[in-house]
Amino acid sequence: MNGSGTAPAVPRPAYRRMGVEQRRTQLLAAALDLFAQRAPEDVSLDDVATAAEVSRPLVYRYFPGGKQQLYEAALRSAADRLEGCFAEPETGPLTQRLSHALDRYLAFVDEHDAGFSALLQGGSVVETSRTSAIVDEVRRAAADQILRHLGVPEPGVRLRMAVRMWITAVEGASLIWLDEDKQPALDELRDWLVDHFVALLTATAARDPQTARVTRAALGMEPADGPVGDLARRVLPVVKDAAHLL
Amino acid sequence: MNGSGTAPAVPRPAYRRMGVEQRRTQLLAAALDLFAQRAPEDVSLDDVATAAEVSRPLVYRYFPGGKQQLYEAALRSAADRLEGCFAEPETGPLTQRLSHALDRYLAFVDEHDAGFSALLQGGSVVETSRTSAIVDEVRRAAADQILRHLGVPEPGVRLRMAVRMWITAVEGASLIWLDEDKQPALDELRDWLVDHFVALLTATAARDPQTARVTRAALGMEPADGPVGDLARRVLPVVKDAAHLL
Repeated sequence: MNGSGTAPAVPRPAYRRMGVEQRRTQLLAAALDLFAQRAPEDVSLDDVATAAEVSRPLVYRYFPGGKQQLYEAALRSAADRLEGCFAEPETGPLTQRLSHALDRYLAFVDEHDAGFSALLQGGSVVETSRTSAIVDEVRRAAADQILRHLGVPEPGVRLRMAVRMWITAVEGASLIWLDEDKQPALDELRDWLVDHFVALLTATAARDPQTARVTRAALGMEPADGPVGDLARRVLPVVKDAAHLL
Repeated sequence: MNGSGTAPAVPRPAYRRMGVEQRRTQLLAAALDLFAQRAPEDVSLDDVATAAEVSRPLVYRYFPGGKQQLYEAALRSAADRLEGCFAEPETGPLTQRLSHALDRYLAFVDEHDAGFSALLQGGSVVETSRTSAIVDEVRRAAADQILRHLGVPEPGVRLRMAVRMWITAVEGASLIWLDEDKQPALDELRDWLVDHFVALLTATAARDPQTARVTRAALGMEPADGPVGDLARRVLPVVKDAAHLL
């Protein structure tokens, strides 16, 4: 793995000008970009070196563990960015906060499509219990954020599960959206996922007093011209013939 | 891989009495049972031989590809059983059919817990694109069944996605349920997942004419004392203070 035979005898100026952190960031960005376009097993260190316009030995100097280490580092940086998507001030109607977070999350999905699928769908040769742990950490961070916004310091099992179920559904929807050639448009998908959250929370409230309290408080903060008002007005004609159920 | 050194010189009578298919079924059942208790990487062919009370060479004779082949075959048989869970006559209210299918599915999850988690959570060393394809096939079969019960020969992207999202949510809920020490009770989880389906379908109906038609037809078949009537009556007090949204 010395590679001195292929490295240029005189390093190009760019090699010296970049600091260690800067170079590492550049290599990770190049790797993440490649992992976004193809399945991890179809990306080689040579590809990363070419994309970053450096020699293969240089890539190895930064990531002596080879592709596995590079993949985990790229995943780590993607996870940090994803966790950043969920940060949102605790003001305004809940559906508005959720929409903002979803906009950032779905932009990430749109940008990293093949890599996002490969990671979440499994079956990748570079997937390990460590990479699964990173993905789980992102899920946990998302759930914690939502519960914080719901204002529940000690969520019971129903509310906890409802939030985790919705996060699973969002992930699933993202994969299906990629699979369906990115249909419907991103803002429609976002609004639908917000509706899904409201519907799941309300259905859960029907059987769980804690969720019922949270739902009442959240609905009280929604404006009539917001997404929940819109959803309520659109649902009424669908259910109006089912008066026998009340 | 001949193993003649470890096999008993005189095969036990049980060896001869069993036919090829019967033996194969027995080995698969033993393997599936082990994969249910531990992660696939912690199950060896020796364990399978011990559990089935046969010699290791015999296991190799049936599965010359070793553990990977045995795992895939066990997964294949599990997938067939799972697909069988979804078969349900097309009569009666939709939520009743869904409840029956969920009862069978959740019983499977309960029975195969560790193996079910390992498979769906990824990160297993025996996971490959082939095992992922088997899991995807089960998901597709479930979606096809639901769309058939909804009576939609040509579902649009919204309805198709809604059904797939719910299936993802059911899978997620199963994993979370295992993670939450099997809380709440299985029948409560089942009822909640049915409520979730009704809520998601109704929320989707708000924006999609095809889903609206399907939802109206499905609600029309529900009895007042069924799960949808129950859900509607429990939801009303939660949303009654949100009249400003209408």
